[in-house]
Amino acid sequence: MSTGFFGDIQKVKYEGPDSTNPLAFRHYNKDEVVAGKRMEDHLRFAVAYWHTFTWPGGDPFGGQTFLRPWFNDTMEAAKLKADVAFEFFTLLGSPYYCFHDADVRPEGKNFAENTRNLNEIVDYFAKKQSDTGVKLLWGTANLFSNRRFMSGAATNPDPDVFAFSAATVKTCMDATMKLGGENYVLWGGREGYETLLNTDLKRELDQMGRFLNLVVEYKHKIGYKGTILIEPKPQEPTKHQYDYDVATVYGFLKKNGLENEVKVNIEQGHAILAGHSFEHELALANALGIFGSIDMNRNDYQSGWDTDQFPNNVPEMSLAYYQVLAGGGFKSGGTNFDSKLRRQSLDPEDLLIGHIGGMDCCARGLKAAVKMIEDKALSKPLADRYAGWDSAESQKLLRGEYSLDDIAKWVETKDINPQPKSGKQELLENIVNRYV
Amino acid sequence: MSTGFFGDIQKVKYEGPDSTNPLAFRHYNKDEVVAGKRMEDHLRFAVAYWHTFTWPGGDPFGGQTFLRPWFNDTMEAAKLKADVAFEFFTLLGSPYYCFHDADVRPEGKNFAENTRNLNEIVDYFAKKQSDTGVKLLWGTANLFSNRRFMSGAATNPDPDVFAFSAATVKTCMDATMKLGGENYVLWGGREGYETLLNTDLKRELDQMGRFLNLVVEYKHKIGYKGTILIEPKPQEPTKHQYDYDVATVYGFLKKNGLENEVKVNIEQGHAILAGHSFEHELALANALGIFGSIDMNRNDYQSGWDTDQFPNNVPEMSLAYYQVLAGGGFKSGGTNFDSKLRRQSLDPEDLLIGHIGGMDCCARGLKAAVKMIEDKALSKPLADRYAGWDSAESQKLLRGEYSLDDIAKWVETKDINPQPKSGKQELLENIVNRYV
Amino acid sequence: MSTGFFGDIQKVKYEGPDSTNPLAFRHYNKDEVVAGKRMEDHLRFAVAYWHTFTWPGGDPFGGQTFLRPWFNDTMEAAKLKADVAFEFFTLLGSPYYCFHDADVRPEGKNFAENTRNLNEIVDYFAKKQSDTGVKLLWGTANLFSNRRFMSGAATNPDPDVFAFSAATVKTCMDATMKLGGENYVLWGGREGYETLLNTDLKRELDQMGRFLNLVVEYKHKIGYKGTILIEPKPQEPTKHQYDYDVATVYGFLKKNGLENEVKVNIEQGHAILAGHSFEHELALANALGIFGSIDMNRNDYQSGWDTDQFPNNVPEMSLAYYQVLAGGGFKSGGTNFDSKLRRQSLDPEDLLIGHIGGMDCCARGLKAAVKMIEDKALSKPLADRYAGWDSAESQKLLRGEYSLDDIAKWVETKDINPQPKSGKQELLENIVNRYV
Amino acid sequence: MSTGFFGDIQKVKYEGPDSTNPLAFRHYNKDEVVAGKRMEDHLRFAVAYWHTFTWPGGDPFGGQTFLRPWFNDTMEAAKLKADVAFEFFTLLGSPYYCFHDADVRPEGKNFAENTRNLNEIVDYFAKKQSDTGVKLLWGTANLFSNRRFMSGAATNPDPDVFAFSAATVKTCMDATMKLGGENYVLWGGREGYETLLNTDLKRELDQMGRFLNLVVEYKHKIGYKGTILIEPKPQEPTKHQYDYDVATVYGFLKKNGLENEVKVNIEQGHAILAGHSFEHELALANALGIFGSIDMNRNDYQSGWDTDQFPNNVPEMSLAYYQVLAGGGFKSGGTNFDSKLRRQSLDPEDLLIGHIGGMDCCARGLKAAVKMIEDKALSKPLADRYAGWDSAESQKLLRGEYSLDDIAKWVETKDINPQPKSGKQELLENIVNRYV
Repeated sequence: MSTGFFGDIQKVKYEGPDSTNPLAFRHYNKDEVVAGKRMEDHLRFAVAYWHTFTWPGGDPFGGQTFLRPWFNDTMEAAKLKADVAFEFFTLLGSPYYCFHDADVRPEGKNFAENTRNLNEIVDYFAKKQSDTGVKLLWGTANLFSNRRFMSGAATNPDPDVFAFSAATVKTCMDATMKLGGENYVLWGGREGYETLLNTDLKRELDQMGRFLNLVVEYKHKIGYKGTILIEPKPQEPTKHQYDYDVATVYGFLKKNGLENEVKVNIEQGHAILAGHSFEHELALANALGIFGSIDMNRNDYQSGWDTDQFPNNVPEMSLAYYQVLAGGGFKSGGTNFDSKLRRQSLDPEDLLIGHIGGMDCCARGLKAAVKMIEDKALSKPLADRYAGWDSAESQKLLRGEYSLDDIAKWVETKDINPQPKSGKQELLENIVNRYV
Repeated sequence: MSTGFFGDIQKVKYEGPDSTNPLAFRHYNKDEVVAGKRMEDHLRFAVAYWHTFTWPGGDPFGGQTFLRPWFNDTMEAAKLKADVAFEFFTLLGSPYYCFHDADVRPEGKNFAENTRNLNEIVDYFAKKQSDTGVKLLWGTANLFSNRRFMSGAATNPDPDVFAFSAATVKTCMDATMKLGGENYVLWGGREGYETLLNTDLKRELDQMGRFLNLVVEYKHKIGYKGTILIEPKPQEPTKHQYDYDVATVYGFLKKNGLENEVKVNIEQGHAILAGHSFEHELALANALGIFGSIDMNRNDYQSGWDTDQFPNNVPEMSLAYYQVLAGGGFKSGGTNFDSKLRRQSLDPEDLLIGHIGGMDCCARGLKAAVKMIEDKALSKPLADRYAGWDSAESQKLLRGEYSLDDIAKWVETKDINPQPKSGKQELLENIVNRYV
Repeated sequence: MSTGFFGDIQKVKYEGPDSTNPLAFRHYNKDEVVAGKRMEDHLRFAVAYWHTFTWPGGDPFGGQTFLRPWFNDTMEAAKLKADVAFEFFTLLGSPYYCFHDADVRPEGKNFAENTRNLNEIVDYFAKKQSDTGVKLLWGTANLFSNRRFMSGAATNPDPDVFAFSAATVKTCMDATMKLGGENYVLWGGREGYETLLNTDLKRELDQMGRFLNLVVEYKHKIGYKGTILIEPKPQEPTKHQYDYDVATVYGFLKKNGLENEVKVNIEQGHAILAGHSFEHELALANALGIFGSIDMNRNDYQSGWDTDQFPNNVPEMSLAYYQVLAGGGFKSGGTNFDSKLRRQSLDPEDLLIGHIGGMDCCARGLKAAVKMIEDKALSKPLADRYAGWDSAESQKLLRGEYSLDDIAKWVETKDINPQPKSGKQELLENIVNRYV
Repeated sequence: MSTGFFGDIQKVKYEGPDSTNPLAFRHYNKDEVVAGKRMEDHLRFAVAYWHTFTWPGGDPFGGQTFLRPWFNDTMEAAKLKADVAFEFFTLLGSPYYCFHDADVRPEGKNFAENTRNLNEIVDYFAKKQSDTGVKLLWGTANLFSNRRFMSGAATNPDPDVFAFSAATVKTCMDATMKLGGENYVLWGGREGYETLLNTDLKRELDQMGRFLNLVVEYKHKIGYKGTILIEPKPQEPTKHQYDYDVATVYGFLKKNGLENEVKVNIEQGHAILAGHSFEHELALANALGIFGSIDMNRNDYQSGWDTDQFPNNVPEMSLAYYQVLAGGGFKSGGTNFDSKLRRQSLDPEDLLIGHIGGMDCCARGLKAAVKMIEDKALSKPLADRYAGWDSAESQKLLRGEYSLDDIAKWVETKDINPQPKSGKQELLENIVNRYV
């Protein structure tokens, strides 16, 4: 039974590239097979509960702009929100969703009440998942909004906050497992600092290491089969966030012996805030063997904060999915939309329109990436460029069979005088433009 | 015998804070003892050969502005440059200097000639060191200026460039050892990429790992006792440089098993380019146990490229030396000035004036930091803030004696409901302002 | 009668540089005369009502952290807030304050109720001003927080919003005049756009021009003697804000014939967001003849959004007040603290501590600037550098008495071949460091 | 007769979207008519002499990578360079080119020799233009590379440099007129400062105002019919450049009474450095009536300096040409490629490939923009959004027929309580994606 929130909007259909219907897909055709898989199975779209259903439209200079009937911190409102959310997933045809505990349940007066509230909603969700076929891509705990977390969760100077946070993560992992969530995510929004003057970096990194180990140990204890993911972000809300970027998270995992246990959930906007391109973060995660999932929300290149907008630049999406596919595609991960409507986009239909545009853009990106891979458009020139390293002699060099003085002798004796070769960047950029 | 380049300028003396002599120190008094050591031994200043003696004053939009009698790529000019350089070190009273091979010797037509040229200069330097008492803080190889390195040195697609680079590093390590250099530095100016389209990230990271292992193995083989240092930088000249920042270098060292062999040389300007404060990078290197040395040249906060200016903001320097001292002070490292005169600063005396201002600024920073440490001005409030973690119970938590469900049970049973406490940032900032 | 909010804290006194009392001034000694004026009369400090009394401690990722007894949108709460505010001004010894309408009165259900509420509070303030001697530096209208302004106020696509905004400004100008406010400020927080796709730039600039003319006409009509000020900011909350920076505002004033009617209120944080140093914006406003007042809140150089922190870097403040004094000092303007406590600074005393630190820092800056001016430390070298332009011949050149071909002939005939002279940047930086 | 530099490469042809020939156009079909004009006449492409023929491939960390037979500062080399350049224009089918004096003539020992050298080359160019049909889009003077300009040209503290610069501009304007150049450009690369400490902002702005007036007066005196253009840039090489952005230039023109005499040449890369999108700068120039021409070279969004790369993102180009067309298209202006090959792109063919990719990308952007305009895809929703302002009453408001108190009375009486309407950003972004 419909909540009526979306009026008479019907299930969004694929109508092909020439459609001008704003409530139809023009490129995302879920059952179309590309590179041996249905597009739905490649892209594994998920809707983010928080921005889509709980964000009131506020910003640092203004309050709520959205007027939603479920904006009330009660169990009844939480259920109405859930009704609308699953209605939305179904209208949109999104196979997955993602949530934080605080998005879905009313805030209790203490940990026990939070847990009871969460469990009640989990049962409600379980029924809805079963009714609609919508699945949970990942669950997570919100350890950053409540004032108790203002100085960090795992990295708080107060061990009670560490404990409260750990306990909360336990309940969220339980909930995720119960709902069949395919991943569990940790985003350390307050794990960082505002000023070094009041921060003991070493202690806080140790606390964070212990916390992550607790999570991994618990996963094994309960037999959870999903993937544990860390979501890097360099800053905001904090001045510095410890999970700065993929490279930083990798070092942290290595330090704590967790590089085979935990992977990364990479967000385009966070990549940009860290001074990287999205494809850099993806390529690096592939190279380090820790790629997990993506949050597909762009930043505005002229803004110095996270704007969490829907993706709309097809060439960028093509390069992103190129990296995803080059690494073998998603395993347990998927394409989560951590994207917000602009706060001026007040109409219920805007929620659908934002997601449709993003999904179409991703679909075009995916198709272009598949074609580039099938044509070896980039991989062939790449292999050629590094071909010198495939020789037996070069492989010995890489395996460490020569020492620095062996090499020096060889360079001197043979008078090695290497000549540079064109990097062909413009040619490769033009080739990409054949596909996008 | 003087080269005459500096006219009748005499050895720079300490004249105290009230001096208005632009060619005197007002704060750097090398023999003054603070925190149990002479200032010279705390700060361990070094002059950078490249910016001070070889940079012509060019920028991307204009050519040479400096007219130096030694600007000529011959051995004779190289020796004149060395004469002026050691004269400069002596006038300034800098106990150390640093150099790249390409700064000090003429470019040969091949590796063998480069090596011969370098060795000839090394002998010349050895004599000068012995005459003046000036020492070598660190040596390094320039693997970025010559066009052969345009696509990387260790990370070049052409293994011949890898070999040429490795051979060159060998000669520079030999030179550094011969001159008693206390550290050997690697800055990977071209170890990165311009575009991912022509870059195999995984291959290049593997190449770079092998290269660093070669260096460490060679260090042990020849019995070199100095420290191997990596200098992080996020970008420029490349779009992305692999040694992005301290956290990234740490992950790279862990991946290659070198975290106990290699430390970092941290530059203020590079920290800023990576989106960090200088003190962040220092504090993190301390926390990770890889702090080595510093390059004391600031960037302009309104410019998006490396401006390599002399430090002039005392509060910033205070926080920097606070971190250095908090980590136990310099061991083999020191304070290298990788600072450039502005290209409009044409007069020979400007070279001295720039360094004098920087050294005075560092000296004030050091003295403020020493006082803050002696007063426990920051460390006392810090210890208080984290005191909860010192309890036996909290230590068990950190050692992993409780599991996630143990903790959850405890939080629920005890109804743990932590209340936030003021972070006191403004108070701490005011306290710092008592010292600077 | 005290509200009790600040416990037993007494009026903040000047105790001199050696004081370690966190609730005393160490440098700001209001009656001390420098450069012929009391420090209070030079600096003209004002407390910002909004950040100090109405900001709940929220950020985009977390809610309220401050628990203030007056956080309630009623007239009673508004009066309690006013009681605490004037108590604070008195404890601190701030001669001025500043406010938006929305900071001080409860939000009404329509324009008429807003106006009644504002007027009731204005009467309450008038009495408090008279009791305490505290004065109003400036008043302003909040045309950005309420959802009705989400697409702009003067620049809204809906003329009704323009009208509502204009009416609101009228009431705020009336209030400011009644309270003896020395300036009236316009900050166009939503006068800009999120996307050009839905924005008619030309229309919106015309609307904004008309709006400003309305304000100036009304000022003259009612005989208001204060100064109309625009506060530039480049972005945030919008992607682009029309009053980008001082240069942009100047062009806008010229376009609308208002360059002699309106001046600028320059904020350090906004300068930085626009890619400028604070002293640049001040110097430019002086050069263009539109300098009015300052907001003395810094940004964090590593954050890409407005952090509105208390100033704490004395060298920066010195260069800022140097420009203020070089332009003749404040006339109707002053030093407003548009500074926020960090959201972790929960204690009532933190409000005082933040302001005390900022005021001390400004006082040190002012004193350094005064000394530099008295010594002609910078102005003498500056005059020397440009001395060539003071010749009669050069003045003719500037007045336009020679044409391009006259000049070409002269250069050719005389074989003019100018030689560059050192810009002496390092020397000047060292000179500044003698004062700070 | 061919120079042989481009080997056996033939004139680049349009082969349609399916071509995989790297030396063919896939989208730029110069004779194809869109929106009533040939694509060549819409786009008016020009090749930039400097980056294409004189840049050696250096960057701040490395020297020359390109080995061109004409890299020699003699008249003979200058003529060889011209031969290759016009060969290039012809192969590429570029209808226009642009140059600085210093790009095309050897540096003389003084002004007189510079002038003679320039004039000799101008004659050489005139003949080549007549032979090939290639035209001059604009000429300009390089007043930034030579060390005499290190402290500015028009804004130099030394009036002799002002004079030398003015004389040089005269010769360049003469050259541009003689060659039929359709515009004359001023880019003030050194008109700015490195530090305010040695800068008299007011003097320098006055000098710059006089200089521009000299140029305009001379234009009228000699009867030059082309357009005078200023090219804004915020910084680099200087810390601050006076012609910061379009808004700043507008204010400067208004101050000097030149807003009807001078227009702007807008570069994508410079827009980004100034914190703007390219389309913002274009839209603003249209709104202010000063749009002239464009430099079509992008920056890398992750680099803080000007990278001057070839455009390759079609959606961005579409929005750019949308603004160009919305303003009525180019009059005397055109699309100049101020784009550099990457320094690793060593092959002669790379020069062609870079331009071909850029031209194709512009052509796709143009076609998308034309279609959006023809469909009123954006202009219809825009007109609807602002329709309220078209009423007679609103027009009176805009014309100033109501005062602030009239409006307040009206708002109060009518109880005007405007309700926000959706800004529809996502819908509009999706609509754009139908075209690109």
